[in-house]
Amino acid sequence: MLKVPQHQVAGHMAKNGVLGPLVDDSGKFYKPLQDNDRGSAELSFYTSLTVPPSIRPFFPTFHGTAVVPASDGSGPHTHLLLQDLISPYTKPSVMDVKIGSRTWHLGHSEDYIAKCLNKDRTTSTVPLGFRITGIKDSFSSWEPSRTFLQTLSAEGVAVVLRKFVSSSNSDNSQSDPDCDFAAEVLGAVFERLVELKAWFEVQTLYHFYSCSVLVVYEKEKGNTKPLVKLVDFAHVVSGNGVIDHNFLGGLCSFINFIRDILQALHH
Amino acid sequence: MLKVPQHQVAGHMAKNGVLGPLVDDSGKFYKPLQDNDRGSAELSFYTSLTVPPSIRPFFPTFHGTAVVPASDGSGPHTHLLLQDLISPYTKPSVMDVKIGSRTWHLGHSEDYIAKCLNKDRTTSTVPLGFRITGIKDSFSSWEPSRTFLQTLSAEGVAVVLRKFVSSSNSDNSQSDPDCDFAAEVLGAVFERLVELKAWFEVQTLYHFYSCSVLVVYEKEKGNTKPLVKLVDFAHVVSGNGVIDHNFLGGLCSFINFIRDILQALHH
Repeated sequence: MLKVPQHQVAGHMAKNGVLGPLVDDSGKFYKPLQDNDRGSAELSFYTSLTVPPSIRPFFPTFHGTAVVPASDGSGPHTHLLLQDLISPYTKPSVMDVKIGSRTWHLGHSEDYIAKCLNKDRTTSTVPLGFRITGIKDSFSSWEPSRTFLQTLSAEGVAVVLRKFVSSSNSDNSQSDPDCDFAAEVLGAVFERLVELKAWFEVQTLYHFYSCSVLVVYEKEKGNTKPLVKLVDFAHVVSGNGVIDHNFLGGLCSFINFIRDILQALHH
Repeated sequence: MLKVPQHQVAGHMAKNGVLGPLVDDSGKFYKPLQDNDRGSAELSFYTSLTVPPSIRPFFPTFHGTAVVPASDGSGPHTHLLLQDLISPYTKPSVMDVKIGSRTWHLGHSEDYIAKCLNKDRTTSTVPLGFRITGIKDSFSSWEPSRTFLQTLSAEGVAVVLRKFVSSSNSDNSQSDPDCDFAAEVLGAVFERLVELKAWFEVQTLYHFYSCSVLVVYEKEKGNTKPLVKLVDFAHVVSGNGVIDHNFLGGLCSFINFIRDILQALHH
């Protein structure tokens, strides 16, 4: 029985007649294949993915495609069959961060570039090199609006990241979060992202536009090891011998925000 | 006696009635202060520059300002008085590389952004994260046109960088340069740029738009240690707590081209 994911934080939601992802009871995530270049781009990315073994765990497991009824009631539709990253968690804290100061590339249409450029300039994408596209903390029911998250200043991002790793964060205006989980969770996220960065400094196969880092963990003592994955590959293009300087720069910026929080813990 | 620099590879040239930089016989470089925000931005950058001691050598020495006759014959004009980076060399090989996939920032005017964006998209700036803005090899009189250099593909950049460190490169179409100076020169450039990169991964004071890495060396045995400097700070803005992800990404891309050449030497 397919159902709407309970903890999705970004992208189209499969409710109110909208085409969106579904999940089953066996840990699979059904992502509707878009009827355009993006759909085929994401499918071919998964089918031809070639990365070093140490980097493979950053990508969701791919189980092929499946034709199942679309969430919008339009009938059978091809879906990518992916690992449901959230299903192992009871009360997950989830954050989606779209990496890069540019979400478009030269192969996009002028219209698409103009649309992206406008959004990149009016969100934190251009100034910070990334934008937080969604957060949902099932433990405290904290779920800031996407608009709020995407337009955060540097100071705002620092507060939100600290709230993401705090025990008590029901108050949206709270400016001094307790950071109870910062050392464990952000410490581990930092280590994973630094591994990812090392790969991005040399890999010239892929350029990841509009791709996100997804962080998931659960606020339970003794079990807070975070999951750090890359998601959304509809705008991946060939690197053609050039590193993905756009993703790398944004990733380094995000890493530096985490480094700052970790360093403050020691003072 | 002020004169026109002999080995300038980028920026306005002080000839044919154009306002441009001058040099004297004592190793000083006179850069005309622009009559707008850029002039004051570059002056205030130099006067307030605050970087760790290990990073200071990447910047030209600043000697204040001086009012001297402008090169365009318009009379007395205020100039920045800087270290002439080229004067110690007899037959220098000089390369100017404008770093970053974006030469504009959100504080620029819409007109300026549109102009930059167009140039960034039609040169290697967007695809590669940098553009080579000038090369002059006094040893072999190799001086490719700026348009040729700025629009190079990844493969083109690789050839040009190898020619930059070759003994014999008078033939513009040459595709297999000898790379006689690659190990010494690019090896040292690589080390310097990796040091610079480490600083850019954490520094949040400055964002350097339209800033260049200048590389200078001389093709003489036993004396090929290259100079690696940052130049052009007319578009530096405050980092406001965010790393310069734009410069960092482009720098990493340029570094990876050099790494590739060095690695090929060992095979």
